Amino acid sequence: MKKITIVGAGLVGSLLSLYLAKRGHKVQIFERRKDPRKLKKSEGRSINLALSDRGWAALKKIGISDEVSHSAIPMFRRVMHSIDGTLSFQDYGKDGQAIYSVSRGGLNRILLEKAEDDPNITVDFNHRCVSANPETGSAVFQNDSETIEILNDAIFGTDGAFSKVRSAFQRRDGFSYSQEYIDHGYKELTIPPGPSGTFKIEKEALHIWPRGKHMLIALPNLDGSFTCTLFFPMKGEVSFDSLNTTLKAREFISKVFPDAYSLMNDFDNQWESNPTSSLVIIKCKPWNVGGRSMLLGDASHAIVPFYGQGMNSGFEDCRVFDEILENSNDFNTAFESFSNTRKPDADAISDLAMQNFIEMRDLTGQPKFLLQKKIENRFSELHPDKWVPLYSQVTFSNIPYSTALAAGKKQEEIMKKIMKITDIESLWDKPKIDAIILDCLKNDTQAN
Amino acid sequence: MKKITIVGAGLVGSLLSLYLAKRGHKVQIFERRKDPRKLKKSEGRSINLALSDRGWAALKKIGISDEVSHSAIPMFRRVMHSIDGTLSFQDYGKDGQAIYSVSRGGLNRILLEKAEDDPNITVDFNHRCVSANPETGSAVFQNDSETIEILNDAIFGTDGAFSKVRSAFQRRDGFSYSQEYIDHGYKELTIPPGPSGTFKIEKEALHIWPRGKHMLIALPNLDGSFTCTLFFPMKGEVSFDSLNTTLKAREFISKVFPDAYSLMNDFDNQWESNPTSSLVIIKCKPWNVGGRSMLLGDASHAIVPFYGQGMNSGFEDCRVFDEILENSNDFNTAFESFSNTRKPDADAISDLAMQNFIEMRDLTGQPKFLLQKKIENRFSELHPDKWVPLYSQVTFSNIPYSTALAAGKKQEEIMKKIMKITDIESLWDKPKIDAIILDCLKNDTQAN
Repeated sequence: MKKITIVGAGLVGSLLSLYLAKRGHKVQIFERRKDPRKLKKSEGRSINLALSDRGWAALKKIGISDEVSHSAIPMFRRVMHSIDGTLSFQDYGKDGQAIYSVSRGGLNRILLEKAEDDPNITVDFNHRCVSANPETGSAVFQNDSETIEILNDAIFGTDGAFSKVRSAFQRRDGFSYSQEYIDHGYKELTIPPGPSGTFKIEKEALHIWPRGKHMLIALPNLDGSFTCTLFFPMKGEVSFDSLNTTLKAREFISKVFPDAYSLMNDFDNQWESNPTSSLVIIKCKPWNVGGRSMLLGDASHAIVPFYGQGMNSGFEDCRVFDEILENSNDFNTAFESFSNTRKPDADAISDLAMQNFIEMRDLTGQPKFLLQKKIENRFSELHPDKWVPLYSQVTFSNIPYSTALAAGKKQEEIMKKIMKITDIESLWDKPKIDAIILDCLKNDTQAN
Repeated sequence: MKKITIVGAGLVGSLLSLYLAKRGHKVQIFERRKDPRKLKKSEGRSINLALSDRGWAALKKIGISDEVSHSAIPMFRRVMHSIDGTLSFQDYGKDGQAIYSVSRGGLNRILLEKAEDDPNITVDFNHRCVSANPETGSAVFQNDSETIEILNDAIFGTDGAFSKVRSAFQRRDGFSYSQEYIDHGYKELTIPPGPSGTFKIEKEALHIWPRGKHMLIALPNLDGSFTCTLFFPMKGEVSFDSLNTTLKAREFISKVFPDAYSLMNDFDNQWESNPTSSLVIIKCKPWNVGGRSMLLGDASHAIVPFYGQGMNSGFEDCRVFDEILENSNDFNTAFESFSNTRKPDADAISDLAMQNFIEMRDLTGQPKFLLQKKIENRFSELHPDKWVPLYSQVTFSNIPYSTALAAGKKQEEIMKKIMKITDIESLWDKPKIDAIILDCLKNDTQAN
């Protein structure tokens, strides 16, 4: 039994506490914010998230997937909205496979309640971490009335992209670190429910308005509303900067996303009151200092949201780390092993998420891309042992992200050849095409 | 006339002060360390540096290149030492072209004296910057007795790779930043002078002991000694970590660098008392906040030392920035322009410096590589308008680093083809080879 400090009671921190407590450790969680269960609705982060297989697997292993599933909405496919209102569709996987829209706040509340029910876990809100010592496992917290120092056997930083625990790592010689802001930021907008909580657009889908350099997406909420997110350049000719009056913004949005705009009731008000936020990619190495301190989730690998894998990868961190603890309860060995083996997977999903941004905002609007996906899906159904589409490897499996990335590259090379075939538009579902793909796969295997 | 704060009186900060004062600005420099002119010799950083054309150009424009040249030792070529003691040679450029070994401390002293002689410049030592506000141009400094706040029109961070000014940038939304520790670190060792200040190995050369994954280099000092630097993995099977006793280190060094070892008098003592240091690469963006604050030199782009361009690029920063000020004395415009136009060049020399590490530690030990360089040099002499070797573009010119990097990539592609020619060892100086290179260049131009 060890005494453990966790900094941050967000999604990853609260799930991690459950895993550690189950192994018999005593866990103290400290969280900067107020108890989210005591907030008025408007104070919390409203964003919803897409839970997929990796997230479910981590929730299941700790026994809470059933409870979460009651408030999750399956999204079976992408629905693309073109400017003229035409819709096109792309299934995410095979029959019954879906990603799930869940509320960040709701999920966090479930995890926190489980944590507080656990006799091995305590949670202190309103405690801001002001410093940490990764070598000793100590940390200093401030609340409204006092400053306390906590020294336990180990400290975990699950305090997000702007982690205070990590900032102590950053002062150590040999700690590599990067924060990269991408050119795009985002703003949330809401499509309210229809009469009696009905859904104004297809409920069980993720909606995309792909427009090349920017895009709007929408995920369903239980009350019939959709949370829309506009991903848009921060600076430049067409950007948040250039849409510097509500009038300009309204003119632009109503022209470029006419169907979505017409479903928002109070666009002007939303545009003015909702913040514009930037998107940052965090990478670092190593994630641990001996067996004393470790970073998990966004604290060690914040990624862009375009593959819906931020939370899922953080949850998978917890499951993978728990598997390592299963084989070694020596923290030195376990921390070192987790940092070394998990890092390539975090790098892989980081790259995949940037790639998927291009796919979502641009390629999903192109008929040739949709055809390519149809060919891949067809082949995959005929030869499920030979071809699992990259999206499915990431979303509907638990194989390491780095393995998926490598496999995806090979698939993309093969599909490039296929898409160059003359008349592929009419030949795409002919056995001849299957034979060519099989042949490519065979050559590829021999070459390795 | 503006009032300006410079944080850091190292090489770049003190040179920058001269440039700004010449334009009529009032400059206050604050430096964390003691006045280097009052230090005992052993307290300063002993390392010597290789000054090349970019550095000279920046010193010349401000009128102090002559004075510096009196204590600079030209190095006309690389001398490679193999394990069996065989030497091979590679000229750096054409007749008379050289890089120059200068003492960091000596050069800094010259620059500081010029600064203190200037009525527009004040220098305060023992003043540690504890915080900076990039938006207002203010900074807080601490000395032994007091804490002072300085608010001037603008603040420049020339406080090195671990810049305090930059740490204030790092808390700003949208500031991209990376620090990457490479696997290798370094330790300095000294070859003392021979009798009466003679040089025990060739004076006017940079010596390299290339050994694949690691290397030793040596630069001459005025007193007849050589400062050697061992670049070596920090961790792993053969590393600073594994050479964890003086006995192990002595056995290894004497076996792998026998001629260098035999020239060091007190290896054991040096190994024990000289620190082992890590090597970090810093990148960030943007370098400025409006016209209020800017980072120059290592503070914005610390690079590895393998191209000898760290100081040179920092000095070039000053010259290039001064050219921008020549065209616009509006700081907003000038800072923005410098940050945008100089950043790609800083990235380019950062990449080139890592590439050159591989060249120095590994390739310079291979006959095929030395032959390739001979072919390039021969062709360059025949067609100086068509081919300037990459090393010369970086070292003996002032063309933008990014232009040099791009040109170098094309040259490398051509040379790859040339080196594949059967019997290139005997054909290398035949007109036929020149014709093939000319042909490649022609095709390359047409393709663009």
